[in-house]
Amino acid sequence: MFRKQNPAAGSRPGTLVIADGAPRPVIHVMSYSHDDVQEVDVTSSASLREVLDSPQTHWIDIQGLGDETLIREIAELFAVHPLAMEDIVNIPHRPDAQVFGSQLLIVTRMVRVDDGQHVDMEQLSILVGPNYVITFQERPGDILDPVRNRIRFEQSSHRKLGAHYLAYSILDTVVDGYYPVLESIGDYLESLEDLVVANPNPQIMQELNWLKKQLVNMRRVMWPQREAVYRLVHDSSAYFDESVRLYLRDTYDHCLQTSEVIDMYREMVTSLLNTYLSSIANRTNEVMKVLTIMASIFIPLTFMVGVYGMNFEAMPELKVPWAYPLLWVVMVVTAAAMLMYFRRLGWIGDSTDRNLSER
Amino acid sequence: MFRKQNPAAGSRPGTLVIADGAPRPVIHVMSYSHDDVQEVDVTSSASLREVLDSPQTHWIDIQGLGDETLIREIAELFAVHPLAMEDIVNIPHRPDAQVFGSQLLIVTRMVRVDDGQHVDMEQLSILVGPNYVITFQERPGDILDPVRNRIRFEQSSHRKLGAHYLAYSILDTVVDGYYPVLESIGDYLESLEDLVVANPNPQIMQELNWLKKQLVNMRRVMWPQREAVYRLVHDSSAYFDESVRLYLRDTYDHCLQTSEVIDMYREMVTSLLNTYLSSIANRTNEVMKVLTIMASIFIPLTFMVGVYGMNFEAMPELKVPWAYPLLWVVMVVTAAAMLMYFRRLGWIGDSTDRNLSER
Amino acid sequence: MFRKQNPAAGSRPGTLVIADGAPRPVIHVMSYSHDDVQEVDVTSSASLREVLDSPQTHWIDIQGLGDETLIREIAELFAVHPLAMEDIVNIPHRPDAQVFGSQLLIVTRMVRVDDGQHVDMEQLSILVGPNYVITFQERPGDILDPVRNRIRFEQSSHRKLGAHYLAYSILDTVVDGYYPVLESIGDYLESLEDLVVANPNPQIMQELNWLKKQLVNMRRVMWPQREAVYRLVHDSSAYFDESVRLYLRDTYDHCLQTSEVIDMYREMVTSLLNTYLSSIANRTNEVMKVLTIMASIFIPLTFMVGVYGMNFEAMPELKVPWAYPLLWVVMVVTAAAMLMYFRRLGWIGDSTDRNLSER
Amino acid sequence: MFRKQNPAAGSRPGTLVIADGAPRPVIHVMSYSHDDVQEVDVTSSASLREVLDSPQTHWIDIQGLGDETLIREIAELFAVHPLAMEDIVNIPHRPDAQVFGSQLLIVTRMVRVDDGQHVDMEQLSILVGPNYVITFQERPGDILDPVRNRIRFEQSSHRKLGAHYLAYSILDTVVDGYYPVLESIGDYLESLEDLVVANPNPQIMQELNWLKKQLVNMRRVMWPQREAVYRLVHDSSAYFDESVRLYLRDTYDHCLQTSEVIDMYREMVTSLLNTYLSSIANRTNEVMKVLTIMASIFIPLTFMVGVYGMNFEAMPELKVPWAYPLLWVVMVVTAAAMLMYFRRLGWIGDSTDRNLSER
Amino acid sequence: MFRKQNPAAGSRPGTLVIADGAPRPVIHVMSYSHDDVQEVDVTSSASLREVLDSPQTHWIDIQGLGDETLIREIAELFAVHPLAMEDIVNIPHRPDAQVFGSQLLIVTRMVRVDDGQHVDMEQLSILVGPNYVITFQERPGDILDPVRNRIRFEQSSHRKLGAHYLAYSILDTVVDGYYPVLESIGDYLESLEDLVVANPNPQIMQELNWLKKQLVNMRRVMWPQREAVYRLVHDSSAYFDESVRLYLRDTYDHCLQTSEVIDMYREMVTSLLNTYLSSIANRTNEVMKVLTIMASIFIPLTFMVGVYGMNFEAMPELKVPWAYPLLWVVMVVTAAAMLMYFRRLGWIGDSTDRNLSER
Repeated sequence: MFRKQNPAAGSRPGTLVIADGAPRPVIHVMSYSHDDVQEVDVTSSASLREVLDSPQTHWIDIQGLGDETLIREIAELFAVHPLAMEDIVNIPHRPDAQVFGSQLLIVTRMVRVDDGQHVDMEQLSILVGPNYVITFQERPGDILDPVRNRIRFEQSSHRKLGAHYLAYSILDTVVDGYYPVLESIGDYLESLEDLVVANPNPQIMQELNWLKKQLVNMRRVMWPQREAVYRLVHDSSAYFDESVRLYLRDTYDHCLQTSEVIDMYREMVTSLLNTYLSSIANRTNEVMKVLTIMASIFIPLTFMVGVYGMNFEAMPELKVPWAYPLLWVVMVVTAAAMLMYFRRLGWIGDSTDRNLSER
Repeated sequence: MFRKQNPAAGSRPGTLVIADGAPRPVIHVMSYSHDDVQEVDVTSSASLREVLDSPQTHWIDIQGLGDETLIREIAELFAVHPLAMEDIVNIPHRPDAQVFGSQLLIVTRMVRVDDGQHVDMEQLSILVGPNYVITFQERPGDILDPVRNRIRFEQSSHRKLGAHYLAYSILDTVVDGYYPVLESIGDYLESLEDLVVANPNPQIMQELNWLKKQLVNMRRVMWPQREAVYRLVHDSSAYFDESVRLYLRDTYDHCLQTSEVIDMYREMVTSLLNTYLSSIANRTNEVMKVLTIMASIFIPLTFMVGVYGMNFEAMPELKVPWAYPLLWVVMVVTAAAMLMYFRRLGWIGDSTDRNLSER
Repeated sequence: MFRKQNPAAGSRPGTLVIADGAPRPVIHVMSYSHDDVQEVDVTSSASLREVLDSPQTHWIDIQGLGDETLIREIAELFAVHPLAMEDIVNIPHRPDAQVFGSQLLIVTRMVRVDDGQHVDMEQLSILVGPNYVITFQERPGDILDPVRNRIRFEQSSHRKLGAHYLAYSILDTVVDGYYPVLESIGDYLESLEDLVVANPNPQIMQELNWLKKQLVNMRRVMWPQREAVYRLVHDSSAYFDESVRLYLRDTYDHCLQTSEVIDMYREMVTSLLNTYLSSIANRTNEVMKVLTIMASIFIPLTFMVGVYGMNFEAMPELKVPWAYPLLWVVMVVTAAAMLMYFRRLGWIGDSTDRNLSER
Repeated sequence: MFRKQNPAAGSRPGTLVIADGAPRPVIHVMSYSHDDVQEVDVTSSASLREVLDSPQTHWIDIQGLGDETLIREIAELFAVHPLAMEDIVNIPHRPDAQVFGSQLLIVTRMVRVDDGQHVDMEQLSILVGPNYVITFQERPGDILDPVRNRIRFEQSSHRKLGAHYLAYSILDTVVDGYYPVLESIGDYLESLEDLVVANPNPQIMQELNWLKKQLVNMRRVMWPQREAVYRLVHDSSAYFDESVRLYLRDTYDHCLQTSEVIDMYREMVTSLLNTYLSSIANRTNEVMKVLTIMASIFIPLTFMVGVYGMNFEAMPELKVPWAYPLLWVVMVVTAAAMLMYFRRLGWIGDSTDRNLSER
Repeated sequence: MFRKQNPAAGSRPGTLVIADGAPRPVIHVMSYSHDDVQEVDVTSSASLREVLDSPQTHWIDIQGLGDETLIREIAELFAVHPLAMEDIVNIPHRPDAQVFGSQLLIVTRMVRVDDGQHVDMEQLSILVGPNYVITFQERPGDILDPVRNRIRFEQSSHRKLGAHYLAYSILDTVVDGYYPVLESIGDYLESLEDLVVANPNPQIMQELNWLKKQLVNMRRVMWPQREAVYRLVHDSSAYFDESVRLYLRDTYDHCLQTSEVIDMYREMVTSLLNTYLSSIANRTNEVMKVLTIMASIFIPLTFMVGVYGMNFEAMPELKVPWAYPLLWVVMVVTAAAMLMYFRRLGWIGDSTDRNLSER
């Protein structure tokens, strides 16, 4: 469920709340210019200071937020606005893009399908400055390796563009990361679709509800993300210049497509829930038919044999020799008549067989 | 389900991903001026270069995307923006209309009812330049033959208008192609409507769900298409000039009508699902009535005959000669009373017959 | 269902498609000035030409579209834009209002309740020129006689105002024509409302669905109509001048009211569908109660008499003279106990009676 | 249901249609200045003329519309636009606020809870002129007495403000009149809420539907009313000056709150409908459990005693003296086993008792 | 339910209605400058006057509205507009932010989870003046202690900022107060989710409805609150200056997040209601299966033994010595065949066991 790492209501704005058990930060810095790439692992804010003096583009990648002192030192070093820091640390914050002076803070949510089928969501905050990008992740491990590799190996195209392009690359990668997740949800939906008709059982109901919860959650994240990207592309007082905004337009298109697919899936989950309910109703109907056929045939017959089990002294039929076989004839005819009636109602035969054999 | 030919998240923008098994491109070029039409089949980008030097209007129709080299060469030849190429090749892209410098890229989705009742959707990208239109299709086969014929035979009206009018013609044909598909869906819906009441069976549920999925899908395509055409008509910084925009306004009207009909069909599918559920509930009700009538009549009778099947030594009734016929009278009267009671409840007779005979 | 008289996709814009079996046009011309009214029946476009030269206001009323040559001649005579002609002839077109040069085309849908309860919809296209109004109807017969009579008899108020006021009169009459249709639908809804509770049967479900389809259809027509009138009233580049627009504001109000009533009816149909479903569930519940009461009372009794129908040699009870009457006492007490139990559960007595007697 | 006092479609705009049986007008005029209040009952338009010549503020309160001649005379006297008269007389008109020259017409709907629980709606049209306010009501009796009393007794605050403030007072009183109606609906909803769980019966379904219809109706009225007040407050070309608009802002807030409460109630009615349906499903479940328990216990026992009621000559058990008591033991054990099985399934005991005792 | 402390419709605007039993006001004043904090409890409006003359920032915190005279005196002292006073006293007013001359009135709703699980809502009105903030609460007790403590102890950051910042602090604290309430609702939802599947009983239905009512209520409050904060941040004629608006932007983000979570919860409640309904349907299905299996097995057997309980004189089978054991064989085979049939239908065995054991 929703749980926010929020400071107690009424705290000073900018109060940071580190979640218990948040992993300690691991800081990795990539500094590059057109000709050159250096990568350093950094452990104190002091070493970041020297890094900052160089004329290169820097990507300071902070994975894990579990050290308030260090986080505060970095915030001070880069003069991050307290409200920006609050958005970064007090997780989860709504996906958003906000300008603080010369810095832009993009809060976004990174998704991955974990081992098996768990959808893992992690907040990624991208702080963009003139010549650096600082990314804050909740914990180590991300989907940004392709960006790192492009910095390492694509000298001509990626390295010569500065920090703004880097920010775009990261954001784009995060948004594109929704596609494989959606595809795996789509596959799962399709398999459930077959199951709902073939073998409706209460577990499916639970899985559909679980799926719906995932989709509601993703929608709650994707909509503000899409809105934030829209503002980055279209706002008149734009932070990015035209060349980066052209690329961002593409990212926005992907946001649109993603949120449309999420909505489509939600509709399909609702359809499946209806199918499930109608399957149960249908099966109850089948069960009732079997009971009714059995009872309607045998209850009158049992009555008949009961008649001749009576001990009245004066029951002339009992003496007649062909009465017993005649009764059998009557009973067989009665049963056959009932069967034919039910067949005419369509309860037996083709349709029943078909329905029953579907299991 | 949704499956996008997307490059791995984090790839360089403009990375092209050719689907496995995509058919190799077949390129057909129509070059025409007012007096003249030439048609050539082209296999290499080189031959396109000469074509391009002429002062005529050209329609370069590329069917199939399965050759990355060739596609890249064409893109280079016509100086297509990498992001435009990504939208064309990485299928499916959201229907859209976007200006890249002097070129306009319209991404659209062409529908056809395939053999039988499968709705076939194929992305058609229309790239408009000063004197040429390049169309990219996923695979050979389309619904554009009427446009080709008009180029071949309508000297006065079509040929003298340039590339922009050609682009409009293609877009209009694609949008009009939704009408026959919608009409066949409407016919199908109407036939299901009769079936749901006459013979509700679980297969109908599946077909309705399938239909709903088709409509959700078409809606997901038609809405951005409609929005894109709207922008082509109304945006202040218009790519097309006023004369073509007048025609596009008509295309926009058709988009509107199409998406309204889609929404209407979706509502009708929902109505049918409800009818189906109520039909099942109704039939269960009928089954229960039969059971209840049979059981309520015969269970008391069986009890009565059971009484006189007891072996007590002192049962005076057994000795009375008219006791047996009297019991029969009592039983017939009891059964008749029950029948009348059920008829008064409306379970037998008119209403039951009507309901049952509806099958 | 939806079926559009559309030319094959890809045809030249402006292609006219006359529906098979469309009635041949009957043309009636009313020419009037303040002092004078002339009415002529016209059969060829030639006679229209002379009519056009006079300084009067003309209403050319064309009922039936089944003659392409004649329609084309008229279009040429009045210099109607090909796209306007397409909207007029290729039925049904979305209700709309569009300016073509000096002409305004209003496409609208006229409703009538036909013999019995069929809602009849017919496209009426109103082409407004400087001193003439041309109306195109699908077939003879309309609801415009009051307008004709006002032209004939209201010298002071109607005749002195020109073609624009005539166009408004016709449009207003069409919109007001929705009121009686809605009222008859409302009456029908109210009668269904009583029926759903008193005697729920599957036919009601069908009628509700039919009604819903009608309302969805009317909504699909009324919304664009309302939007078109809105634009006629409020657009800055208005075709009508202020005096006519004041009247049109009233028409717009009626459009609003009509579409609100349509939406209200749709909600009520949905309510009735729910009531119907709950009625069925309730009746199944009643049926089950009867079965359960009958079975629960007689099954134990039948067991008891079965016990004493056994043929064991050593059954001391059989010899006891008062065993048989005692058993009767036991059985009556048992049955009474069951009845009281069911009465305590509320299954018998007050509530049951009430529910059952509602039929 | 919806029924509009509309002239036949196609009538001249401004045609007045007096409903059959509309009560004859009763006209009451309050004329006041800061120092002075006069009240007169007026029966002819002539006496209104003199009234009009005075420099005071006048409230002409017309209750009942059943005299076309008188209404027309008043309309002429005050130079009311024909379209305004149509909106006033042809009831019901959509709530609206419209400026006609120097007059403002506010059409609104006054609600009251009538004797018992009927929600009574009556159209109140407020025509505002420079120094007079004319109110038209459908029939005598209203909720405006507090306004009259404030005119009579609040010399300082009310009397010295002119006709515009009077119009505001009336409008505000009408809007505030929705609160008690909503509160009584809320109470009723709450009582239904308890009933749905305690004793679900079909009548509740009907009352919920009735309530929903009321709410749909109120919503249909309140939304345009709220919109009209919004325009009175915010439109640039405002009829009222700033001081009155400040008060109207408060009225607008009340409109907002009212329509939000209506929407909240509608959601709650829907919740109750769902609860009702689930209650029925639950009770059917309970009924089935009783039947299944009874049948499952006694049907096997009846079979057993049937076995020893057979007349085979060779049935050794019949001769065994302890066979009869042994059979009793077997039957008791069987019955007990079934009971325990059902208890383990949760069908008997705690949960059943709890559920059943809830009635 | 909704109940408004509204004056009778038609009262003079600004009429105050004190609820019966409203607690008497307790007034606490905090006056602070950068160096200094004084706190006084005040009982009459006179003592407020002196307070007002000082150059410090004042927070006048009025808890309880049950003294009309005192409230009126304060209103007069601070020259509060009558409409503002009406909004403050006539509870509940819609959350809103409105400028009255030099004062800003923010009406907001404070939530708390009371003892156990009751969500307590209380109106808090914040009246902002040049150098003072007056807060009006319905009753003593609030969630604003953190703000008070920050005034007392955070000399540097809070005290040196003036009344506007204080107003922001209070508003922010109120909005952040929704988080713990939402988290506790989320926990409760999650526990219900488990219960619905494990043990569906009618009480859950009631709790879900109760929860839905809470959420509908919170939504009704949060939406206008969010809108009001939006206007405080973005309106051109802003009351607050840029520095405070930057902080308010953060508050707005929290409003957004809160209302999104509320909507998500509402969707989940709806999902749970559906799950509950399907659980009941499923259990009815299980009950029916048990009945059908028992009846289908034993009814034919009972018929068979009934046959040989007949007293015909001529029943050859009765004489055959092995007829009795043979009949047993037949009966066992019949029962086994039925059991296998039901197992093949999936009614017995794996799936049934699983379903049944889920309880």
